[in-house]
Amino acid sequence: KGKNVIFVAGLGDIGLDTSKELLTRELKNLVIMDVRENTEGLCALKEICPETKVTFIKYDVTVPLDESKKVLKKIFDKLKTVDILINGAGILDDHKIEATIAVNYTGLVNTTTAIMEFWDKRCGGPGGIICNIGSVTGFNAIYQVPVYSGSKAAVVNFTSSLAKLAGITGVTAYSVNPGITRTTLVQKFNSWLDVEPDVAELLLEHPTQSTKECAENFVKAIEKNKNGGLW
Amino acid sequence: KGKNVIFVAGLGDIGLDTSKELLTRELKNLVIMDVRENTEGLCALKEICPETKVTFIKYDVTVPLDESKKVLKKIFDKLKTVDILINGAGILDDHKIEATIAVNYTGLVNTTTAIMEFWDKRCGGPGGIICNIGSVTGFNAIYQVPVYSGSKAAVVNFTSSLAKLAGITGVTAYSVNPGITRTTLVQKFNSWLDVEPDVAELLLEHPTQSTKECAENFVKAIEKNKNGGLW
Repeated sequence: KGKNVIFVAGLGDIGLDTSKELLTRELKNLVIMDVRENTEGLCALKEICPETKVTFIKYDVTVPLDESKKVLKKIFDKLKTVDILINGAGILDDHKIEATIAVNYTGLVNTTTAIMEFWDKRCGGPGGIICNIGSVTGFNAIYQVPVYSGSKAAVVNFTSSLAKLAGITGVTAYSVNPGITRTTLVQKFNSWLDVEPDVAELLLEHPTQSTKECAENFVKAIEKNKNGGLW
Repeated sequence: KGKNVIFVAGLGDIGLDTSKELLTRELKNLVIMDVRENTEGLCALKEICPETKVTFIKYDVTVPLDESKKVLKKIFDKLKTVDILINGAGILDDHKIEATIAVNYTGLVNTTTAIMEFWDKRCGGPGGIICNIGSVTGFNAIYQVPVYSGSKAAVVNFTSSLAKLAGITGVTAYSVNPGITRTTLVQKFNSWLDVEPDVAELLLEHPTQSTKECAENFVKAIEKNKNGGLW
């Protein structure tokens, strides 16, 4: 549909399938910013839709705000306009407290803050759309990973605030909060202080979804484009 | 009541009044860990109850986990047992994204994680009680400070998980979530990207409470000591 989309972590587990799904929608540009360099995945994406230009920029969400702004400036210089930013970077390992919070919450806030310089209507910007990937654990914690769950609650709460600020900034926002999805993240992960060594196995006894199912619903949510939505 | 209490940020705005209120309960020891060195406030506290030993340790919650463990080890070496940890460090300034998240969420998680080494019943510890200071903004964001509000949502969610883990760790937890309290924090603060330059003034038009009222209810909640409580 001729849109320019930036997808942070668009090569991840949920990311890659969501990118594939997005590419069936005839975007103009899909810019993937990811810390991973998955050449194979990227090549597969480039083949899906000849009308869409897929580009890759290496990006670690934990860099300082100014660094994020620089990376985004390059993208805006090239594309002129960007319609949607998808913030999808996330890690699940409650042995790594700092990294979990830095990637899942601080990184998302910084990337969001950085793009406001280009979108904020108070600076003459055209507005834009932010889609943040939260998690059901933001509402209903997986208590064996309290650090992760808390970081996702922060994402949900932050995104709701962004939506309420849309009148001021011109930037709308919603969050997509997947349930348990069979990603590599979930196959094996550390609980906080090892409170439950078998947390991954226990989790997978619950009803789960594939990354493909997740991706399909994800893109449906993006198409609905409802400010303040919680999906 | 003969208890040993550690109070992180016990010299802060809400902290100081809460410390005063706590000292009317005949504690054995009150250890205040604070980044502030408020000699005057500390002296005033020491005079309230001659039976309670009040000590001060300079502590910045943003230090690495190992550093937190070292500070706590010194306290445990001296007091042998600690009954309650109150995590009260918080800043409110949405211009400072990293600091807000590091103090309000990461610091609280690290201090909590550090004390588990001394309390966790799986390591032969006696258990303990964690009281985390969240904020109503964890439930109902002040959307002009989305970064702060998100960090408090993280605290609320994290604390609920801790409470669910009490059966495994022996450590119970609850959060105290003050409404708008007339602290120096609230008199003037920066909104995110200056979306609302007069956010402090607007906030103070709402019903507010004094730090003393807040402190009284705070200590009541501590006395109730309900695992999983949200006050």
